[in-house]
Amino acid sequence: MSFADHIRACNSFDRARVVPLLAGDRRIGWLRHDNAAALARFPKVFAGARDCVRLVAKGDVAAVSNAVDEVVEALVGENLVPKWRNETFDVAPRWGDPPIFRLDRGAVPFFGTRAYGVHLNGYRRDGDRLMLWIGRRAPDKRVAPNKLDNIVAGGIGNGHGIYATLVKEADEEGGIPPALVECARPAGAVSYCMATELGVRDDVLFVYDLEVPPDFTPRNSDGEIVEFDLMPAADVLDRVRRTDDFKFNVNLVILDFALRHGLIPVDDPEYTEVSTGLHRPLE
Amino acid sequence: MSFADHIRACNSFDRARVVPLLAGDRRIGWLRHDNAAALARFPKVFAGARDCVRLVAKGDVAAVSNAVDEVVEALVGENLVPKWRNETFDVAPRWGDPPIFRLDRGAVPFFGTRAYGVHLNGYRRDGDRLMLWIGRRAPDKRVAPNKLDNIVAGGIGNGHGIYATLVKEADEEGGIPPALVECARPAGAVSYCMATELGVRDDVLFVYDLEVPPDFTPRNSDGEIVEFDLMPAADVLDRVRRTDDFKFNVNLVILDFALRHGLIPVDDPEYTEVSTGLHRPLE
Repeated sequence: MSFADHIRACNSFDRARVVPLLAGDRRIGWLRHDNAAALARFPKVFAGARDCVRLVAKGDVAAVSNAVDEVVEALVGENLVPKWRNETFDVAPRWGDPPIFRLDRGAVPFFGTRAYGVHLNGYRRDGDRLMLWIGRRAPDKRVAPNKLDNIVAGGIGNGHGIYATLVKEADEEGGIPPALVECARPAGAVSYCMATELGVRDDVLFVYDLEVPPDFTPRNSDGEIVEFDLMPAADVLDRVRRTDDFKFNVNLVILDFALRHGLIPVDDPEYTEVSTGLHRPLE
Repeated sequence: MSFADHIRACNSFDRARVVPLLAGDRRIGWLRHDNAAALARFPKVFAGARDCVRLVAKGDVAAVSNAVDEVVEALVGENLVPKWRNETFDVAPRWGDPPIFRLDRGAVPFFGTRAYGVHLNGYRRDGDRLMLWIGRRAPDKRVAPNKLDNIVAGGIGNGHGIYATLVKEADEEGGIPPALVECARPAGAVSYCMATELGVRDDVLFVYDLEVPPDFTPRNSDGEIVEFDLMPAADVLDRVRRTDDFKFNVNLVILDFALRHGLIPVDDPEYTEVSTGLHRPLE
């Protein structure tokens, strides 16, 4: 196990195994060949070609979303897609573009549409040491149960902004009051593209840092995190290097935090690879 | 002009216009087709093939360096390479690998070998504002004369380490004493790959931040910087967005600084592109 192993695991995407999903002349997703073949069976919604799949459903966002959702329901019936039924993500060529349709979160990897999340590093200073609040994910989470996580993290649901998602998740996941969240500082984004069992995770995680006061203790209220620990950042980093204890993408968020806060010395043999491995350019 | 324009300018590399330069089975550079053809005329040192050029000179680092240098001298004679004659860079597949040969800095883009530099953001706080020390490059600089620059920046010459280069350049370029440089914090690296007139710049810039005291004023002693200005970081960022006043790669270093210090709001329309555009993964 090494820092680079985590980066490679999150960047296992292989262009040769996918075709683009197009809306007009713009790519909105990556489809594994088997997933592309599955969509081609719904020609009123998707037109399959040799080297791409085209969205052909017409209408406004609601109409296209409904058409796609009928396909998703059929795929759920065939156990090709695990539908979540409580959260949809906007699908668009780029962040900030008007959405073309909304997609059940469980179906996002199948379509390989880009997903966006917010991760918060909650830290405090203990003399010269930086300490990080680390959560443990509930055993019933669909993704990465029991793994260690940031103090707050969540996907950006349709119609929600980055900061609004931070405020909502900070409240539900960590019991962080809005007045304290206001002190959080945006610090860029971590991005990666990963082949998964279901398809492709093409993810952008907007990262915030928040220095929390010594008398603050996070408290979860949505059941997604079962416990929080305050750990020396150096120990967190060592655990990232040696183990798989953290959720796959949280390793990258912690490496980004560590780099930005000068916690990885330049003579670390992985310094160059970490410095250039956490922000995959968007295609 | 936009933030993204600077990122695109530094990532103009086009894989279709180059072939790899190989040492054994490892790539050590990118050769534009015309440069590859030029090297193939020296078959005792380089063997040209259809889709690559191989280093065939044998011996230790000194022997291979001498053999390559004879080729460089011939190319200088044909005005294909502008030799600097005062600085050589190590050539290796990856940072930290033992060097295969040393190459005159002026010839580096011709061979498309990866080059490494150190950039220092010198900042101070003025109440709530961050201020940045910005230098202006001398009019006789070979690269980017008269352009604005970081307080300290320099290439990593052969055999030199990252921190040693920072200390040396901080002294020569900014008159920053070693005791103050010790307070500099490593903050990762900016990377890009750029097609230039001479070939390919495949660059990794190790970035440090240094909070300088209010009574410190940088003073240049090597003639490379003609003046320093203390500017509000917000104004620097605005100038990066609107103009070409800064050296091409300094725009990226400043964008990285601005992101890490929370100076770019998440609702900036270029936030996602900047967040994912400053750290090109190494090939």
